[in-house]
Amino acid sequence: MHCDTSPLLTDLYQLTMLQGYIDYGMMDTAVFEFFVRSLPPERGFLIGAGLETVLDYLETLTFSEEELAYLSSTEYFTSALVDYLREFTFTGHVHAVPEGTPIFANEPILRITAPLPEGQLIESRIINILHYQTLIATKAARCRLAARNRFRLIDFGLRRAHGAEAGLFAARASYLAGFDGTATVIAGHRYGIPISGTMAHSFIEAHHDEKEAFFHFARSNPGNVVLLIDTYDTEKGAVAATETAALLQREDITVGGVRLDSGDLIALSKRVRSILDDAGFPGIAIFVSGNIDEYQIGDFIAADAPIDGIGVGTRLDTSEDVPYLDCAYKLMEYGGEPKLKKSSGKETYPGAKQIDRLFADGIMTGDIITITDESCRGTPLVQTIMKDGERLRQRASLEDVRSYTLEQMATLPPYLMELDTVTPYPVSFSGRLLSLKEELESAV
Amino acid sequence: MHCDTSPLLTDLYQLTMLQGYIDYGMMDTAVFEFFVRSLPPERGFLIGAGLETVLDYLETLTFSEEELAYLSSTEYFTSALVDYLREFTFTGHVHAVPEGTPIFANEPILRITAPLPEGQLIESRIINILHYQTLIATKAARCRLAARNRFRLIDFGLRRAHGAEAGLFAARASYLAGFDGTATVIAGHRYGIPISGTMAHSFIEAHHDEKEAFFHFARSNPGNVVLLIDTYDTEKGAVAATETAALLQREDITVGGVRLDSGDLIALSKRVRSILDDAGFPGIAIFVSGNIDEYQIGDFIAADAPIDGIGVGTRLDTSEDVPYLDCAYKLMEYGGEPKLKKSSGKETYPGAKQIDRLFADGIMTGDIITITDESCRGTPLVQTIMKDGERLRQRASLEDVRSYTLEQMATLPPYLMELDTVTPYPVSFSGRLLSLKEELESAV
Repeated sequence: MHCDTSPLLTDLYQLTMLQGYIDYGMMDTAVFEFFVRSLPPERGFLIGAGLETVLDYLETLTFSEEELAYLSSTEYFTSALVDYLREFTFTGHVHAVPEGTPIFANEPILRITAPLPEGQLIESRIINILHYQTLIATKAARCRLAARNRFRLIDFGLRRAHGAEAGLFAARASYLAGFDGTATVIAGHRYGIPISGTMAHSFIEAHHDEKEAFFHFARSNPGNVVLLIDTYDTEKGAVAATETAALLQREDITVGGVRLDSGDLIALSKRVRSILDDAGFPGIAIFVSGNIDEYQIGDFIAADAPIDGIGVGTRLDTSEDVPYLDCAYKLMEYGGEPKLKKSSGKETYPGAKQIDRLFADGIMTGDIITITDESCRGTPLVQTIMKDGERLRQRASLEDVRSYTLEQMATLPPYLMELDTVTPYPVSFSGRLLSLKEELESAV
Repeated sequence: MHCDTSPLLTDLYQLTMLQGYIDYGMMDTAVFEFFVRSLPPERGFLIGAGLETVLDYLETLTFSEEELAYLSSTEYFTSALVDYLREFTFTGHVHAVPEGTPIFANEPILRITAPLPEGQLIESRIINILHYQTLIATKAARCRLAARNRFRLIDFGLRRAHGAEAGLFAARASYLAGFDGTATVIAGHRYGIPISGTMAHSFIEAHHDEKEAFFHFARSNPGNVVLLIDTYDTEKGAVAATETAALLQREDITVGGVRLDSGDLIALSKRVRSILDDAGFPGIAIFVSGNIDEYQIGDFIAADAPIDGIGVGTRLDTSEDVPYLDCAYKLMEYGGEPKLKKSSGKETYPGAKQIDRLFADGIMTGDIITITDESCRGTPLVQTIMKDGERLRQRASLEDVRSYTLEQMATLPPYLMELDTVTPYPVSFSGRLLSLKEELESAV
């Protein structure tokens, strides 16, 4: 039993609630929506991500006898619930914004329409998937925008990602938002993401000196020679790299780059660039890493640092400045009746909703959140993705999702592309939606 | 292939380095240590966690033919490397601080002694496991200290944890550091952690009114009745709960508690307590949730809020104020020679090390980081856990780890138990260790 595929990756209350729904025959159709309540002040937009992972989850969600036996052993559950779960498959519909679309507060990113117990059971894992991938795709998009098309960006974050799946999902979410690859091997295997990597300081230290390490690495990995030069002294390391490169030329091995992982990366990249150029190696690229985020990338651009590629690790995979989003998955309708939560600071907008996005000259100008049966003035973003538990289309390839995301990012208004967004993007609610909310609020 | 058990959950550079080690016969014994470079200002101590998970990983780490075929397909690797990986099992030694021990900057939390390629290959996943569990055990310990023994604490964080394994590991790490249970069902199955949970707002909203929902839930879950009372209006919800409780008494069903998930929890808990008491239900407990962390728990204590239990979610599972630790796994020795990294701001202390902890009247007074063959003045913390790839003892039960952790937390000096630590705990280096470092620094 693996935590990434087990149906037991859920909150206990989903199951205790199901017991109530089943005992009282509450099997009518429910509508749940996943949305973000408010954007953190550090984010002007979000990039929705994780949809394909959710669809995989819904297509394969079943309980094994061993998992059912565990549930029975807890003494929380009746045999009626266990029997229901034994037969469980997801039979509902999924409507969603395509992965890679910019989204804002209160917008329905994903809607589930299903018999109430089905829609309920899947809540915890749906949030778990969409929340994290959206968090990381957003952070990655900010890095991509800051880097313009000047720097290659590689995800280096596995080691400090929060567990195994965070490492895998961060590679996926950052790639779809414009990164060029990842160091995480399993992400190459699982998603076909280009993988990238060379050597750590331990490789240098295990040798008698840097040059011996450089030669060994290059001869063993002749197609992939990026030398780490900051283990002892970065400038001396750069000189050693040029001396190594000169000798390796005789063996037809090309040194592709050097990596700097510490110190003042702007100043050092300039000095290293001079050392490389002066030694006749203008083609050796400079790669940097070490607790980098979009703000530092902005500094590299501002300083015109001669950097070619950047490994972005911890601060990407943990979304360090914003480690979570205030997101929720809420009941919007049951048995045809719109539903409302009034809890202080956590009110919901009732009913199944659509996002109507307006554009001018290909640039986003504003969104209106509407009731699904209203006609749209602009482009409706929420699409039908799955019907009766079946995907309507083949799984989207990650390359296609990435292309779509980059196109979408190009429709952001310039003020949202800044790292510090002062002007919020205009999102309004349709008159009909506001009336419905008011009506229900006064009725409760 | 699951990301939590696949050997491909690693950084590509581990494999490119291995190719160099194998080509050049660098199979001598290496010593690597995992440590935290510096404590974040928000943390006065850390609780080391994740060791048992690391041991499980090391005991089961092998490559399948399918995984080897993927590696071959990348064209990064020679058949010599693939053949080596086909036969791979971990044959080294593990020395470590027992899980649940308070630890500080530069202290060796875990040491691997193994042939160089083995010690190298496991780096990424070892950091991935120890970093996150230590992060969360530390956050949880702070919550436990803030809560004293006044409040039951339950992990509610799965939905906004960073992926599946983060949800599972957060349940484990918070339980070992003094939490009383988790809402995450799979953590009950996997680790035997007590699971806890009742209902969400959707359960209330799917019914015609709160009371109908309360009755349905209670009759379907008679052993586990905690009613969520803030969906529409918390005080009216509390009155409805007492009316429900009175009627359920006739059916021999006891309402165990109510839950508040929004608003001013201190003020509301006091008002709800009065409503419950005035209606003759002093035994109904008050449970609260909603973006709570150790600071709010401290406020609850200061305000003498009549709270019995707390669901701690997002801010626990993401360690919101400190979402990562500056930790590393570094080569300390190879072929009997101590090794050193000098990179600016990332220098290491060479050689295999021990932690010598001093106590006075059962309270920690200071640590000395020593070379392993030095004699200790106090208690040596680093123990032999695995030899030649085999655990020396049976797997520690999580209950035993939890008891040990709580005992260890009781040895913290009072100034470290404050949420804001002004005085740092004294950690020094032995003279011999400092001399060795200096000697190597001048030699490089």
